[in-house]
Amino acid sequence: MSQPHTPTARTRVIREPHRGVYDRATVYDILDAGFLCHVGFVADGQPFVIPTSYGRQDANLYVHGSAASRMLRRMKEAVPVCVTVTLLDGLVLARSVFNHSMNYRSVVILGTASLVEEPAEKLEALRTLSEHILPGRWDDARQPNQRELKQTSVLCLPIEEFSAKVRTGPPIDDEEDYSFPTWAGVVPLEMVAGTPIDDPRLDAKIDVPAYLRPYSRRR
Amino acid sequence: MSQPHTPTARTRVIREPHRGVYDRATVYDILDAGFLCHVGFVADGQPFVIPTSYGRQDANLYVHGSAASRMLRRMKEAVPVCVTVTLLDGLVLARSVFNHSMNYRSVVILGTASLVEEPAEKLEALRTLSEHILPGRWDDARQPNQRELKQTSVLCLPIEEFSAKVRTGPPIDDEEDYSFPTWAGVVPLEMVAGTPIDDPRLDAKIDVPAYLRPYSRRR
Repeated sequence: MSQPHTPTARTRVIREPHRGVYDRATVYDILDAGFLCHVGFVADGQPFVIPTSYGRQDANLYVHGSAASRMLRRMKEAVPVCVTVTLLDGLVLARSVFNHSMNYRSVVILGTASLVEEPAEKLEALRTLSEHILPGRWDDARQPNQRELKQTSVLCLPIEEFSAKVRTGPPIDDEEDYSFPTWAGVVPLEMVAGTPIDDPRLDAKIDVPAYLRPYSRRR
Repeated sequence: MSQPHTPTARTRVIREPHRGVYDRATVYDILDAGFLCHVGFVADGQPFVIPTSYGRQDANLYVHGSAASRMLRRMKEAVPVCVTVTLLDGLVLARSVFNHSMNYRSVVILGTASLVEEPAEKLEALRTLSEHILPGRWDDARQPNQRELKQTSVLCLPIEEFSAKVRTGPPIDDEEDYSFPTWAGVVPLEMVAGTPIDDPRLDAKIDVPAYLRPYSRRR
């Protein structure tokens, strides 16, 4: 069920406003189809953009990392951040160079992240992150111990100020270009998983688990 | 040919320093294998991270967009930016949740972009962008006219202050975890192109061009 959402001046899509999507359900679908985000933060006036994995639970987005990392150290200071998720769906080849485009789904979330410190909540956030990427894996792997939990920082960003931008479909050429003699259309792009590669030290008696066959981000 | 490069305090990889790569040739290989970057910039103290395509020519990275977009308007003001390119190569499943990871190649470039204004240089930069994504397409499409060139802004970011971070290979578990009874290994991930989809208005006499068969970002 989608809740109404009004973009702020900062999240309203300016360029190609008809591609702006402010519907919470659509945004959650995009976030749930991906697991890699790019986190933007500022340090000494310089923006940094760092790739990391994420998980979503309701209106919370979780990221985690080493407590020693530049990103986590900075984000813990309750500074403004931007988390962007981009799913690339295709190259859009128009007749004119100018009207070439890409099909994509992207989400931008602005806000301030906070450190998840309560132990049960932190463990649950880590489980959310793990299950977001690979459902079924958490229960099948060795759980985090106290030392590992201490080395890991988890941050929560509320999904409050956000927008999405989505392009789908064929190229849109200027009317006079439709007679230009070149191929036009879409080259679909998709992130696909290959055959799992056993760890060289894997016990030969252990098979690839059911939750990995087939692994796909298609949603 | 790789030139020596020393990271600055801002680009030196802090977390897992052995994964830091400062070799210009490796960085160019990563940049040339991708075509989607995430651009970080700051406006009113708020970082923004926007996905966009890019092209590379020698030590210059080019991005383009509508002169009306938030990103281009801001970047033209000669503010500090961060451009990050991330190629995701696999999920790394260790025995312990803690040692799960991803295989990836990422590049972070810091600097100040400048507007490419000289007409011949601007056209050449647009050609670089086009050929970076799809070699052969530029000459086969209708070239930009004066009106379109005016609506498009091109920015150049020198590849001067940068670093890469690369993870490859199997999971690395704590020694005592190797006997933990779960599957471990790598799930390869790859961006693949599907069969080109004709534009509904395509002239039936026009075939898919040779430069699209097969299209791959594998390098």
